[in-house]
Amino acid sequence: MSETVVLDVDVKSPIERVWNALTDSATLSRWMLFKSNDFQPVVGHAFQFREADGWDGVIDCEVIEVDEPRRLSYTWVSDQLGPSNLQQSTVVTWTLTEAGGGVTRLRLEQSGFDSEARQEIGGARYGWTSMLDELQGVLAST
Amino acid sequence: MSETVVLDVDVKSPIERVWNALTDSATLSRWMLFKSNDFQPVVGHAFQFREADGWDGVIDCEVIEVDEPRRLSYTWVSDQLGPSNLQQSTVVTWTLTEAGGGVTRLRLEQSGFDSEARQEIGGARYGWTSMLDELQGVLAST
Repeated sequence: MSETVVLDVDVKSPIERVWNALTDSATLSRWMLFKSNDFQPVVGHAFQFREADGWDGVIDCEVIEVDEPRRLSYTWVSDQLGPSNLQQSTVVTWTLTEAGGGVTRLRLEQSGFDSEARQEIGGARYGWTSMLDELQGVLAST
Repeated sequence: MSETVVLDVDVKSPIERVWNALTDSATLSRWMLFKSNDFQPVVGHAFQFREADGWDGVIDCEVIEVDEPRRLSYTWVSDQLGPSNLQQSTVVTWTLTEAGGGVTRLRLEQSGFDSEARQEIGGARYGWTSMLDELQGVLAST
C-alpha cells in the first residue's frame, strides 16, 4: 500500500510570485527547512536540499516537470534512513491555481510513501505544514 | 491549511468486483469498521455508517458522485468530536483504474481535514489502512 501526503493552502499572493518562491533557489532557502539547495526549474536537472537544524543529511532530487506557473514536480530521496529503516523514494508535486481575488491555491503532494513508514509520513506532514507556514510568511513580507 | 489523506492499493481483482465491494451495503459491512450502513450508490442519497467496536457514534454521509465503475464520492461527517475538538467535514472519494493483468488500482482520498486536527488525520490514516487490508481480504476470499 502506498500513501500520499496532500496539503492545500490559499495564499494571498499572485500566482507568479508563488511560483517564484517555489523555483528561485535563494527564496527556497528562506522558507524550506534546508540550509542550501542548487535547484533550477529545468526538467532533468539533478539537485539537492542540504542540511537542516540538527540534521546533516542530503535530499537527492531530479526535476520531472516544469509547467510555469501551474505545476512543478521533482523526485525526493533522502540519503539517510528514517526511523522505519525503509528507503522512501517519493515525488513532490506542486500545483498552483488562481482562485480569484488575488488568491493562489497551492497544493503540495508528496507521493510514493510505503504506508508502513508511518513515522516518515508523519514527519513529512509535520515538516511540510511548518514549511508552508514559513512560505506564507515569506510571501507576506516581501 | 487543509489536508487530504490519500492511500493507493493494487488489488488483484476485476474492477467490477472492487466496485461491488465499495457499493454493496452488505459487502461494505464485511470490511468497514462500522457495524451497519444504509448506503446506496445513488447521487443525493443520505446515509450513515453506524457503530464500531468501542465506538457508538454515527457518520453522516451523502452521495456526491457515482460513476460506475470508476469513481464514487460521498461526504463524511462524524456526530462526535474527536480529540482536537474540531468538527471535520470531509469528503471520501474512491477512484478505480484497471492496471492490466486483472489488477485494479484503488485510490482512497479523504479531503477537507483542518491540518490542525492532527489526531483525527492520524486516526483516519490508521483506520483506512486497516480497512483497506480488510477489503483485500474480502476480495481474496470470495
